[in-house]
Amino acid sequence: MGELSSAFSAVPTHKPVKKQIQFVEDKQEFSRFPTKAGRRSLSRSISQSSTDSYSSAASYTDSSDDESSPRDKTQVNSKGSSDFCVKNIKQAEFGRREIEIAEQDMSALISLRKRAQSEKPLAGAKIVGCTHITAQTAVLIETLVALGAECRWTACNIYSTQNEVAAALSETGVAVFAWKGESEDDFWWCIDRCVNNEGWQPNMILDDGGDLTHWMYKKYPNVFKKIRGIVEESVTGVHRLYQLSKAGKLCVPAMNVNDSVTKQKFDNLYCCRESILDGLKRTTDVMFGGKQMVVCGYGEVGKGCCAALKALGAVVSITEIDPICALQACMDGFRVVKLNEVIRQVDVIITCTGNKNVVTRDQLDRMKNGSIVCNMGHSNTEIDVASLRTPELTWERVRSQVDHVIWPDGKRVILLAEGRLLNLSCSTVPTFVLSITATTQALALIELYNAPEGRYKQDVYLLPKKMGENIYCRYITLTCSFEHWSELIYFSVCFKFQL
Amino acid sequence: MGELSSAFSAVPTHKPVKKQIQFVEDKQEFSRFPTKAGRRSLSRSISQSSTDSYSSAASYTDSSDDESSPRDKTQVNSKGSSDFCVKNIKQAEFGRREIEIAEQDMSALISLRKRAQSEKPLAGAKIVGCTHITAQTAVLIETLVALGAECRWTACNIYSTQNEVAAALSETGVAVFAWKGESEDDFWWCIDRCVNNEGWQPNMILDDGGDLTHWMYKKYPNVFKKIRGIVEESVTGVHRLYQLSKAGKLCVPAMNVNDSVTKQKFDNLYCCRESILDGLKRTTDVMFGGKQMVVCGYGEVGKGCCAALKALGAVVSITEIDPICALQACMDGFRVVKLNEVIRQVDVIITCTGNKNVVTRDQLDRMKNGSIVCNMGHSNTEIDVASLRTPELTWERVRSQVDHVIWPDGKRVILLAEGRLLNLSCSTVPTFVLSITATTQALALIELYNAPEGRYKQDVYLLPKKMGENIYCRYITLTCSFEHWSELIYFSVCFKFQL
Amino acid sequence: MGELSSAFSAVPTHKPVKKQIQFVEDKQEFSRFPTKAGRRSLSRSISQSSTDSYSSAASYTDSSDDESSPRDKTQVNSKGSSDFCVKNIKQAEFGRREIEIAEQDMSALISLRKRAQSEKPLAGAKIVGCTHITAQTAVLIETLVALGAECRWTACNIYSTQNEVAAALSETGVAVFAWKGESEDDFWWCIDRCVNNEGWQPNMILDDGGDLTHWMYKKYPNVFKKIRGIVEESVTGVHRLYQLSKAGKLCVPAMNVNDSVTKQKFDNLYCCRESILDGLKRTTDVMFGGKQMVVCGYGEVGKGCCAALKALGAVVSITEIDPICALQACMDGFRVVKLNEVIRQVDVIITCTGNKNVVTRDQLDRMKNGSIVCNMGHSNTEIDVASLRTPELTWERVRSQVDHVIWPDGKRVILLAEGRLLNLSCSTVPTFVLSITATTQALALIELYNAPEGRYKQDVYLLPKKMGENIYCRYITLTCSFEHWSELIYFSVCFKFQL
Amino acid sequence: MGELSSAFSAVPTHKPVKKQIQFVEDKQEFSRFPTKAGRRSLSRSISQSSTDSYSSAASYTDSSDDESSPRDKTQVNSKGSSDFCVKNIKQAEFGRREIEIAEQDMSALISLRKRAQSEKPLAGAKIVGCTHITAQTAVLIETLVALGAECRWTACNIYSTQNEVAAALSETGVAVFAWKGESEDDFWWCIDRCVNNEGWQPNMILDDGGDLTHWMYKKYPNVFKKIRGIVEESVTGVHRLYQLSKAGKLCVPAMNVNDSVTKQKFDNLYCCRESILDGLKRTTDVMFGGKQMVVCGYGEVGKGCCAALKALGAVVSITEIDPICALQACMDGFRVVKLNEVIRQVDVIITCTGNKNVVTRDQLDRMKNGSIVCNMGHSNTEIDVASLRTPELTWERVRSQVDHVIWPDGKRVILLAEGRLLNLSCSTVPTFVLSITATTQALALIELYNAPEGRYKQDVYLLPKKMGENIYCRYITLTCSFEHWSELIYFSVCFKFQL
Repeated sequence: MGELSSAFSAVPTHKPVKKQIQFVEDKQEFSRFPTKAGRRSLSRSISQSSTDSYSSAASYTDSSDDESSPRDKTQVNSKGSSDFCVKNIKQAEFGRREIEIAEQDMSALISLRKRAQSEKPLAGAKIVGCTHITAQTAVLIETLVALGAECRWTACNIYSTQNEVAAALSETGVAVFAWKGESEDDFWWCIDRCVNNEGWQPNMILDDGGDLTHWMYKKYPNVFKKIRGIVEESVTGVHRLYQLSKAGKLCVPAMNVNDSVTKQKFDNLYCCRESILDGLKRTTDVMFGGKQMVVCGYGEVGKGCCAALKALGAVVSITEIDPICALQACMDGFRVVKLNEVIRQVDVIITCTGNKNVVTRDQLDRMKNGSIVCNMGHSNTEIDVASLRTPELTWERVRSQVDHVIWPDGKRVILLAEGRLLNLSCSTVPTFVLSITATTQALALIELYNAPEGRYKQDVYLLPKKMGENIYCRYITLTCSFEHWSELIYFSVCFKFQL
Repeated sequence: MGELSSAFSAVPTHKPVKKQIQFVEDKQEFSRFPTKAGRRSLSRSISQSSTDSYSSAASYTDSSDDESSPRDKTQVNSKGSSDFCVKNIKQAEFGRREIEIAEQDMSALISLRKRAQSEKPLAGAKIVGCTHITAQTAVLIETLVALGAECRWTACNIYSTQNEVAAALSETGVAVFAWKGESEDDFWWCIDRCVNNEGWQPNMILDDGGDLTHWMYKKYPNVFKKIRGIVEESVTGVHRLYQLSKAGKLCVPAMNVNDSVTKQKFDNLYCCRESILDGLKRTTDVMFGGKQMVVCGYGEVGKGCCAALKALGAVVSITEIDPICALQACMDGFRVVKLNEVIRQVDVIITCTGNKNVVTRDQLDRMKNGSIVCNMGHSNTEIDVASLRTPELTWERVRSQVDHVIWPDGKRVILLAEGRLLNLSCSTVPTFVLSITATTQALALIELYNAPEGRYKQDVYLLPKKMGENIYCRYITLTCSFEHWSELIYFSVCFKFQL
Repeated sequence: MGELSSAFSAVPTHKPVKKQIQFVEDKQEFSRFPTKAGRRSLSRSISQSSTDSYSSAASYTDSSDDESSPRDKTQVNSKGSSDFCVKNIKQAEFGRREIEIAEQDMSALISLRKRAQSEKPLAGAKIVGCTHITAQTAVLIETLVALGAECRWTACNIYSTQNEVAAALSETGVAVFAWKGESEDDFWWCIDRCVNNEGWQPNMILDDGGDLTHWMYKKYPNVFKKIRGIVEESVTGVHRLYQLSKAGKLCVPAMNVNDSVTKQKFDNLYCCRESILDGLKRTTDVMFGGKQMVVCGYGEVGKGCCAALKALGAVVSITEIDPICALQACMDGFRVVKLNEVIRQVDVIITCTGNKNVVTRDQLDRMKNGSIVCNMGHSNTEIDVASLRTPELTWERVRSQVDHVIWPDGKRVILLAEGRLLNLSCSTVPTFVLSITATTQALALIELYNAPEGRYKQDVYLLPKKMGENIYCRYITLTCSFEHWSELIYFSVCFKFQL
Repeated sequence: MGELSSAFSAVPTHKPVKKQIQFVEDKQEFSRFPTKAGRRSLSRSISQSSTDSYSSAASYTDSSDDESSPRDKTQVNSKGSSDFCVKNIKQAEFGRREIEIAEQDMSALISLRKRAQSEKPLAGAKIVGCTHITAQTAVLIETLVALGAECRWTACNIYSTQNEVAAALSETGVAVFAWKGESEDDFWWCIDRCVNNEGWQPNMILDDGGDLTHWMYKKYPNVFKKIRGIVEESVTGVHRLYQLSKAGKLCVPAMNVNDSVTKQKFDNLYCCRESILDGLKRTTDVMFGGKQMVVCGYGEVGKGCCAALKALGAVVSITEIDPICALQACMDGFRVVKLNEVIRQVDVIITCTGNKNVVTRDQLDRMKNGSIVCNMGHSNTEIDVASLRTPELTWERVRSQVDHVIWPDGKRVILLAEGRLLNLSCSTVPTFVLSITATTQALALIELYNAPEGRYKQDVYLLPKKMGENIYCRYITLTCSFEHWSELIYFSVCFKFQL
């Protein structure tokens, strides 16, 4: 194994790798607030995830002809309010339909909304949120409102906002500051508008990536101290919270939603099982049946991809350096190979290792004409895309997220999403999966907001698995009689699924 | 079984049902040619399939702002020719890329092109074609040109043309008359422009649906008589040919490509296995895992759908009235149910029977909120959509091809493609499948064009399975040494797939 | 392909190949009856299938210490009758239990028995039967008796009799003449004792292989002429009947049960899917997960084997010369290979082609130590077993049906059932499958016995698919209201399976 | 859920439950040694597992006519030694063949044997072993001998010994004391003869269940203290060791082989996936296709069973009280049901929960005629078998391990292995799986025997995962260059599997 294993041994198979955090303690950086005038990037402290590309079903419905910035426009919703900033408030009706579609597959959340709204467990809660703004998040936000909360919301990613949904939320009175295609300056401006609202002081944070938390911690330390609780969903954000906690600077209880069992299983195995097919189909229309595919890495993501592709008739081989995972691949009926041995025959390569340079330039050189390369693993480092940006190779963008890289002899290799995550870039996350996460977030907010003084210290918590005196359990028992918190989700699953 | 079986007994399971043909022998109908001025529909004789809705990967890239009719514009390609009529010749470059993508997965055709182009087996052939105009057909057309043919082409469907591809073909000199969104008058005008070209008289026909054949038979009987052969791909078109032949009016040998083994297997089992997933995902983003699905009909289409959905974690049940198919469903591990027994629990219903009113209004009334109904079977008759067009129900178009039908109590049922074929309307057909059909079409053209006088009478033929003295076999043997014609396809499959 | 394809082209993939029939028109052969004294083989006219090895669940329970021939013993059942000849009447109780086990999975037959026994549609029928004598056949025989028939029975195979079952039948009064391990002389003696019974003349024949029919035709032509009908189950027997019919010598109507749809599907696809696993496990205890397996031939049998092995985690490759089947294998996700390319790596080879010498001595020479070779295809010709019977190779019988063939260098190849059919030799056929065949046989007997004079001529018939005036349909409608005869089976399947 | 969940909440899904240990500190009990004369049971301290029923492939080959006790016979092997006690030394040749079969699928162990035997890392080791005595253990024992050890061996279970294998080992000079069907007195006598051998004092223990360790600890404390290390494989034995260690009485380092990753995965998921099919088939010959099956519990065992049965065409439903496992079942496409809802329709129930009374008498009363009940979970408590031993029910033993329980109305329920573990009782464990465990055992022995003074204290260890200065790693590196110890196994897997 020699070189290979020393290079890879740190992270032998796919696990949720800690993203490299650009958490810079540079006071200078935040010395002046963003202004409409100066729209240059203020901060390198923006989380990496906030600039990942991201597709959503409705994103292509955007008419992008209107090139003026939302910050330059004055818009008013039908109730006369202009406390929001979205692309076009007139798209509200279309966004409402997207939300209605999403509600169909979010039964746990709707069930919570219906059963607990007379009690208003979030009455008095003033929640600032920073998440992807999509139809599914809208269902969460409107549930929080139904349970009594006031909400102001902004986007955690500069590309991911569904403008119509942002309009629909703004129309109903939620103060949303977000649009698709923000600049980094816009990004921080939106966050600031969300937090800094005269006569309104937030007491809860719902964050995805930690940028909102970071901004408040840095810019509004006095407000931050009075927050009753933070609910954080992402790996990055959770990591930042643990760093703060370790440094003794976390002055607020926080709930880590990222590491709940359901989220882990769904984000990897079940979700990827579907999104690998969806992502490949939407970008390339490739037929799966009979194709020679290599999946690099047989962790949860790889297992999901392989199961789906095998079932659809692809001939799937695996590369894997962890012996246990390799044995599992063997026992599941896949050939375990070295990439170099099969590189000349393969039709599609999918990376899921969480490592760097799993597919090298040398290997790309040897791939055959028309072969497809994409990444389902971590970040954008698995395929050595940088090595393809050399003069002798021609890049042709043939569709959104699809490049033909052309060798001097005419050979084309089809590169998807420039090596970034295929599932984020080229497919949608099923609503049902997002429902599970959103329900967990709602329960975490209820728990932190209602917990008696002193139950949660200035630390990072997991949602307690066992019921008991925990507040949020009341709201589970409103809906079902099961013992563990995850049974709520199970319950609603059964409610929907079972004959 | 009573009523049910008597209603259904004629066609117990899914088989390619003969479409009801509107072949009207009304001379009046063609009494005057379409003109630019009068664009009303001239003909009820248009084939049903020519107005089916049809989606293609690139269709949404159309900027539809240009509302002027192509017939009113004068366009010139870079070679100075204006013998074509497409939406916008400037889209040629984009279309070229779509063609290049398609070439990657059409190895049989490319292999035939490369190996036979020095012989030019189609030298002298003047082919008029009437097919869907997509990137894949473009690869076929350019192959025919490479083998020596002159081609003029038009669309067999008023919606299915990829405008960019039509532009790319026109740019290279193929006379294409087609655009997305033709009126019926446009449709016949394009066909006529294709056929009726001064100083150029076609001697071969490649048709899909029979409209071109019909037009020539009716309008240009003298030209029609001199045609050396017709190659027809569709059920409808083949049926029309057999009718003509039966009536003693077919004066030209014709080749039935529709009923070749490979086409049947691929059009049903393998294609539907992939397009059911693709079609559901693109329209609804639904998660398959854990969903209660009912597939009506366990013929080849149903088998394909069920295999895919089961593999992705759906809980699939079957309705089936043919006992052998029902036994197969049992033995394949599916519950065989009556639709009425499970209608209240089901999340998704997929019809694949080839029958009428398989899902009735009464059943739609009992479906639960958020359930999805779609059709993979035949035409648009399986779901009783007409019964949903009543005043008490509200229809909301939430996306292209997606309607929410809303009951007075707020219940929504999600209807896809208004009950038309999901796979045609909402997913793409894999290029590889189209390659198999296109290769067969090319071989059939070669065979008919080169056959010695008298080998083929004025009748409808299947491509002879056994090699021998048949002309087209020479072109197979150029590429491989196998015995049967389908081995060419096999060969190219292996050439591409095998390690 | 050259040589290969010319050798194989006659029968490119697995289809029920006509067995080579040893139907000798040698009058001499039957010139004298078998006697107790002279037990040498009288006849080369014995059907090949009658000497195939055959395992059954209970066969190893035989105490083989009693070496005396049943023909030399006098046995009496508890009712005082000695009109039977079985191994040991005392085993009746054990046999009864085997029959009771079998009844649990033969619901169609039991249902027919229960519902029709008051009508006695076989009253007056005197049936001679010649089939495998197993618990499942016993359920058939006892059903015939319940419906009014008198039965005398003998074995169609010298190895396949379950002695305990034969005893149990004899105990209840059925005249059975059969035991495990008959000589060929015994075989014909038993048939003769079955037919030639003073004061009892058969009027119906139920045959499996055609030996009984042949014997009666040759030896008792006058009795034969008066037979009302023959029901034949095997390929061989049906072939013999068609020969007779062609030669104008068939003076009795016959029903071909072999070619019914249900039988074909079950005998190949569904049955083999289970018996390949069972046969390999019982003989070798091999783990399937991760094993490199090659299945030669992707017809119905191959498809069944591959589906099962793939599902259990084997890495399965296919060899196939028919391009359509090869394409199917590709589309189902299997690598299509040439045996020579992979022979050195493979752990298990399974032949399912119906051809000769699919695995040659040369290939066996190159297999690795510990690899397994077996046959699921036709007869015993697929593996060139003869080529292994050379002095330099040592054979070691390590278990029943398992030989280690040892090369001079110590390499062992594990050969199962000496290349005969694995599923017949080393696994059991599921009772449910046999139930479907047995129900069909019973219905065919009812139909022929009750049909009005003249409906069936002296020819070979398939059981009519459509109901109507046919007699047997009455007995279907007794049990269900379906239209087609196969619905009875479907009905009982549903009755048993459906929630 | 009420009652149900309170009853089950302790162990919600299948996990290796700690067996209830009968570890009695009763000095009285061992006050006198077993003698040939007095064969009554001496000890209630025998481990439960030692009396579980156990089947093996070769067990039915036993001629059980020889009823005399091996302890009463004097036997001599061909080398003149009589230092052993087995059923019949003459069966050695047959046993040798079984060992040779086993060697074919134990490549890791054979590879270790071949590469390390010149070094003799176990030279001087005197190992007493107490394991199942099967062909696979024989390969382990002979490997230990090849590496330099002297071995004396006895059985850890009174039923599981393959007499022929015991004979084969004795023939080659290993002192084996074991036969199938020992009494409890025999059991302890054999252990004692193994340990107590004049002029030979053991310095290593390989145990499976802890009985040998217990005996030595109690009876030969002085010998026990000088042992260099104990390698223990079973849950029970490991539990006993931890108890000793906790009590401060463990004076020897011990290695826990039971909890290695590979063993866990194989013992549950992969093994059960195969043995559920094998166990059902060998006992009942049931057809899987189309059967309604309920699997109780969706832990690793349940997942394995379900995957196999679904693939073979069974219609599988799940009962599960843990919501995460239930969600997994949903996402894998199984219906999650309550047993009571489906009990009347089900054909087969398989328990895999690790709990008690998962199937109650009340439910058994409602099962349909011919249904099958069996247990793959823990011990024999999952099915309430005791409740079936009442006067109104008749039990009929129809085959080995198969009982028909007959209700007064004639209904029969088929109970397998009297509710004990189906996989142990009615199927065989694949050799490949045993090879992985045996290789781990061999490496653990090498490690403990060669470790420098003081590296291992008087405690229970897991085999260190990381290489480094550990002794055993040398022997891995003899065979491959991988870094982790499990790579040896991976290596040999690849060596065998990979193309």
